[in-house]
Amino acid sequence: MASTKIPNRIVLTEDQIPTQWYNIRADMPEDHDPYLHPGTLQPVGPDDLTPIFAEALCMQEGTPERYIDIPGPVLDYFKMYRPSPMVRAYSLEKALDTPARIYYKYEGNNTSGSHKLNTAVAQAYYNKAQGINRMTTETGAGQWGTALAMACAYFDMDLTVFMVKCSFMQKPYRKGVMETYGATVYASPSDLTDSGRAVLNAYPENSGSLGTAISEAVETATSTPNTRYGLGSVLNHVLLHQSIIGLEAKKQLDMVDEYPDYVIGCAGGGSNLGGLIAGYMQDRLTGKGNPYFIAVEPAACPTFTRGRFAYDFCDVGHVTPLAKMFTLGNSFTPASIHAGGLRYHGMSPMLCKLYNDGFLDEARAVYQREVFEAATLFAKHEAILPAPESAHAIRTAIDVALECKERGEAKTIMFGLTGNGTFDIGAYMQYHEGSMDDFAPSDEELEQGFATIPSLPGIQE
Amino acid sequence: MASTKIPNRIVLTEDQIPTQWYNIRADMPEDHDPYLHPGTLQPVGPDDLTPIFAEALCMQEGTPERYIDIPGPVLDYFKMYRPSPMVRAYSLEKALDTPARIYYKYEGNNTSGSHKLNTAVAQAYYNKAQGINRMTTETGAGQWGTALAMACAYFDMDLTVFMVKCSFMQKPYRKGVMETYGATVYASPSDLTDSGRAVLNAYPENSGSLGTAISEAVETATSTPNTRYGLGSVLNHVLLHQSIIGLEAKKQLDMVDEYPDYVIGCAGGGSNLGGLIAGYMQDRLTGKGNPYFIAVEPAACPTFTRGRFAYDFCDVGHVTPLAKMFTLGNSFTPASIHAGGLRYHGMSPMLCKLYNDGFLDEARAVYQREVFEAATLFAKHEAILPAPESAHAIRTAIDVALECKERGEAKTIMFGLTGNGTFDIGAYMQYHEGSMDDFAPSDEELEQGFATIPSLPGIQE
Repeated sequence: MASTKIPNRIVLTEDQIPTQWYNIRADMPEDHDPYLHPGTLQPVGPDDLTPIFAEALCMQEGTPERYIDIPGPVLDYFKMYRPSPMVRAYSLEKALDTPARIYYKYEGNNTSGSHKLNTAVAQAYYNKAQGINRMTTETGAGQWGTALAMACAYFDMDLTVFMVKCSFMQKPYRKGVMETYGATVYASPSDLTDSGRAVLNAYPENSGSLGTAISEAVETATSTPNTRYGLGSVLNHVLLHQSIIGLEAKKQLDMVDEYPDYVIGCAGGGSNLGGLIAGYMQDRLTGKGNPYFIAVEPAACPTFTRGRFAYDFCDVGHVTPLAKMFTLGNSFTPASIHAGGLRYHGMSPMLCKLYNDGFLDEARAVYQREVFEAATLFAKHEAILPAPESAHAIRTAIDVALECKERGEAKTIMFGLTGNGTFDIGAYMQYHEGSMDDFAPSDEELEQGFATIPSLPGIQE
Repeated sequence: MASTKIPNRIVLTEDQIPTQWYNIRADMPEDHDPYLHPGTLQPVGPDDLTPIFAEALCMQEGTPERYIDIPGPVLDYFKMYRPSPMVRAYSLEKALDTPARIYYKYEGNNTSGSHKLNTAVAQAYYNKAQGINRMTTETGAGQWGTALAMACAYFDMDLTVFMVKCSFMQKPYRKGVMETYGATVYASPSDLTDSGRAVLNAYPENSGSLGTAISEAVETATSTPNTRYGLGSVLNHVLLHQSIIGLEAKKQLDMVDEYPDYVIGCAGGGSNLGGLIAGYMQDRLTGKGNPYFIAVEPAACPTFTRGRFAYDFCDVGHVTPLAKMFTLGNSFTPASIHAGGLRYHGMSPMLCKLYNDGFLDEARAVYQREVFEAATLFAKHEAILPAPESAHAIRTAIDVALECKERGEAKTIMFGLTGNGTFDIGAYMQYHEGSMDDFAPSDEELEQGFATIPSLPGIQE
């Protein structure tokens, strides 16, 4: 391997952007278990979903098709910020003195700051194409809301965002970006929906949760003419859209004759990881290659590493379908770590199936401070301040590179750098000042969460 | 011109990064007038500057050489975030319904958020190579301080930043980024220097100014062993380093057989504009091409459009050399517009000479609200939230494109998009809420500024 000839940034031209998404499910020996309707407990079909999501997205949610054409207007938008770079981390390798070759696929070079824009553009387009003129969504820290606001602005659609109240108060700038892109942003719980009013009546000082915000956004979508809801992770159609990351990544490493021994990504709801692994997971499922896949999650929210594989609700309010997934229980509330995007009790059912069946090889839980230690080292050597979520993957990539050093193995490591940390500097300051804490739930806290996983007579006890 | 075949983003590979900087002065028919020593009023030579700046930078400040090799370690760093994209603004063109073709060179895809990193890396390298182990600088809003912090971290050097006190208080996150990159950040005026103490004794509540911060940084550099100062704009060596922007830009437009009729850049101290025009100004000066160059400045700080061409101090404290430049007077205090990077009373002497001699064709002053109107339109269509400084160039590019539309002319417009607006969302919120003001100095305010331009017996009256 003439590694000295590999450029720092492996650059694709826009005519090399994939024109089709890849659907991992098409190559899985067994599909994940179906979503269940929360009322009937029967498998959910497209018709159950079309009042909530655009029809094309409902079809994609269930499709067994291997490849789906990316619509022209979506590609037009992609060309404004894609292909994203694949970067050889020469400077980090040198700092670690490792024989491993480290690559990262960087999705942070756009105004939303993360990979979320990839599915936001697709979702806005399909809604627009159906004649929908308004979308609703929820947002926590604000990255997903920003991405969907950008996409809706471009396609001239209205967007209503329910933003978790504590973030709404603490992150006025995230709200400011969404408003600049024309979105209307409400603090959740709001008095605009039954779900919001119910919470406010019971707890007037409630500072909000993603669960409540989802309920408000779905309720608004289903009760307003010509309006649909958009979700930023977990679902199959979201992972499908994110496959653009992994397809580009494989093309880029192919160009320099590299094949990863390790593919490493952080996992919250699973949209980044599901996208990142797409190209290489196809190899694995079809016997053409055998990279080792590692999912990295926070010790504070250890869905894969300490969760149960069971049917559970996707939200706190139990208005969404049930999914068979690794879960900490729908009432589980992770500690307030800075990687807000990884604080979800469940996980993409597709990734959970892959993990349960041994195709996703390993999950690692890492602590917050070791994550920021890795992030700071990376920032110094690679000139990018990473998002705390992404830094989970950096931590594990560094650990694997150091394992390679111990064993003297020149392995190839590829990880996903999902976003930049521009809106997370408060967290870096806390780390710098030595006032950052580590968190992991006690066994008792986990048991409390598990207790809210429903008993489903005849399905699971 | 088969314009439909031109990609959205014209991408260079890293082996196409220029390996030499270009020095516009080498092709100017007349050089700018020399800097004058503030004590002796004699022309300043390298020896006057070496206590302040690294020797190589002092040499570059005065050199008549046309091309200067970019050192390998600087190129290594550049390869982590360069070449920067040249983007065809298809979506903006469509929104404007203009026959003009609009291109922009985007320098915001790095953690510092702007083009400042280009010279920061070079300055840190030359200091390191000389054995200097600490740099000092001042910063206002924080972009320059961030860029130099990133560069010093990479080259393992200490950095002391004097940050204007009001920004220090208002922008803790900018301070947080610099500290994450290992810099030590003090609020200026501080009690660490004679200059700072003098201000504090006279005005204990003083909220600081760039002028005072410069004095503190220079004083610290010259009074501390093995320490030098770094400046982010105005000087020749800074513009030299920024020529990378314009050289890449020309290479990119050449690749698609485009030649700009208009080259448009915002101008504060001049480092962006001086870099952006480099390739095409060489054509102009050597008779090989004739683009029309437009400098855009804020109406609140109209250095080119309402200033005087005279020798003036570069700082408020009169510790720096005098430069022959367009100036509003060294005591001129522009209104608090959000484009903090354009609030400078003077301008690069090289650009001023080019403007005075008719090679820089036109300067336009634009108001803040029309700038944010353009920025918001751009953000919607081009998926990038621009920095307020950069949005000055967007405003004028849009105006020129609309002029082309009126005249039915399919001209080619290229402008510099110097940075992203991630740290300027408060300004966007003010614009969105309708509470943003426009500013321009009155004639009387200008006269007060001009009154502080020094009389220099025998040189200028």
